Amino acid sequence: MSHLHRFYSETLDAESPYIELSGDEAHHAVRVVRLHTGDEVSVFDGKGLEVIGAFEAGKDRSVRVRVKQTIRHKPPRVGITLAVGGLHRDKTQEEVVRHAAELGAARVCFWDADHTQRPIKHSPRWRKAAVEACKQCGRFYLPVVDSVSSLQAFLESHNGPSLIALLDEDAPAGQHVAPTDRLALIVGPEGDFSDRERMLALAAGAVPVSLGAAVYRSEVATMLLMTLAAYTLGELGPGLPLDLPPSSLCEP
Amino acid sequence: MSHLHRFYSETLDAESPYIELSGDEAHHAVRVVRLHTGDEVSVFDGKGLEVIGAFEAGKDRSVRVRVKQTIRHKPPRVGITLAVGGLHRDKTQEEVVRHAAELGAARVCFWDADHTQRPIKHSPRWRKAAVEACKQCGRFYLPVVDSVSSLQAFLESHNGPSLIALLDEDAPAGQHVAPTDRLALIVGPEGDFSDRERMLALAAGAVPVSLGAAVYRSEVATMLLMTLAAYTLGELGPGLPLDLPPSSLCEP
Repeated sequence: MSHLHRFYSETLDAESPYIELSGDEAHHAVRVVRLHTGDEVSVFDGKGLEVIGAFEAGKDRSVRVRVKQTIRHKPPRVGITLAVGGLHRDKTQEEVVRHAAELGAARVCFWDADHTQRPIKHSPRWRKAAVEACKQCGRFYLPVVDSVSSLQAFLESHNGPSLIALLDEDAPAGQHVAPTDRLALIVGPEGDFSDRERMLALAAGAVPVSLGAAVYRSEVATMLLMTLAAYTLGELGPGLPLDLPPSSLCEP
Repeated sequence: MSHLHRFYSETLDAESPYIELSGDEAHHAVRVVRLHTGDEVSVFDGKGLEVIGAFEAGKDRSVRVRVKQTIRHKPPRVGITLAVGGLHRDKTQEEVVRHAAELGAARVCFWDADHTQRPIKHSPRWRKAAVEACKQCGRFYLPVVDSVSSLQAFLESHNGPSLIALLDEDAPAGQHVAPTDRLALIVGPEGDFSDRERMLALAAGAVPVSLGAAVYRSEVATMLLMTLAAYTLGELGPGLPLDLPPSSLCEP
């Protein structure tokens, strides 16, 4: 199936008639995708700006895009932050970043947890994973990916409502979160939250939510919670045309 | 965090006072987890039966579990089948199987698609991935994983309602699926459905569903659809305590 090839350029100028591609992006266009002059491509800046234009390969090996159309995409109404405790494995961190970008999260914040052994190290692969995911699925906002030294530090930095995934606790009846422009989803590390962290989060107003009886890996719980939040906020289509089976209404 | 170590035994006998562990499971208990006689463990058969008992290592290297309690877990009310078109990469297939097991799917059926190059080959790693996922998250039903030669073959084998993930088509207003005991979720391959396949599925009564504007990899679309179906059917907890932002009600 043909599709528009997408390129990333952090410094897109909405007014410019030409966009230069450089480095990896230029290499990818010429050597991997093997584009020809005139081919239609898309360039985005990860901050909502997209340019549709015609690819042009110069004799001097310069690679640029002649701008035909500029589109400013709206961000999701609610900026979702995934606040995930101490995932050590690079692959798992990248998986979370990739899914976050695919699902339109605004930020991923890894926090060092009481139950984890060594601090999270910032990796250049996070951004790469996010860029690739955005290119692949056609999202135009890159999530910010950062790390902080504790859950407390995250809670202090986050100025808005939050949900916290707890195994055995649900929101008290009637306690709902109505985010205006931001929402944090807090997920514990492999060894779960410490009692201290749990208390801190609840004291800061995080509303507990359970995902049922199964116990998910942190990265899976993160993905589930992000999916359900995006869905509830109307960002994943109009809703499944699916009703409960009739029997379930009268069963205990 | 301590948790109950889980073992898999396909031929659990609910009446037997002892369960023998053999092969990989015995090796794992003794060499990897290093259990001691008396440690409490769980053994499940992947068909809903779980035994809680005490680990016993014999001098003759036999490894068994003295049964203390037998639990028969109910399956999800609606058995969900993931019908996924032609995923070639082993890793991707295993990822789908793993998520299916984690989320409680009853069956994964890979079908050879018009837009894929070579037929799906049955892999022993599918079952292994499913067993590991069930052990890890505490589900007691293993999904059946199989493959068929076409979407048509799948549709003929599936006797129940289905949803089909389409990029640009939603269910006509009012068209809802109310599954009684089963539901199929049909997802296309990397190159998407062929027109023929799309027509076949719709003619067979599959109800279209879109996941919004982004274009997901097949395995991600599968995971999203499975998550949303399980959630809608009440299998992922009581529902997020999350309301739409007030502004979204009056925006276009």
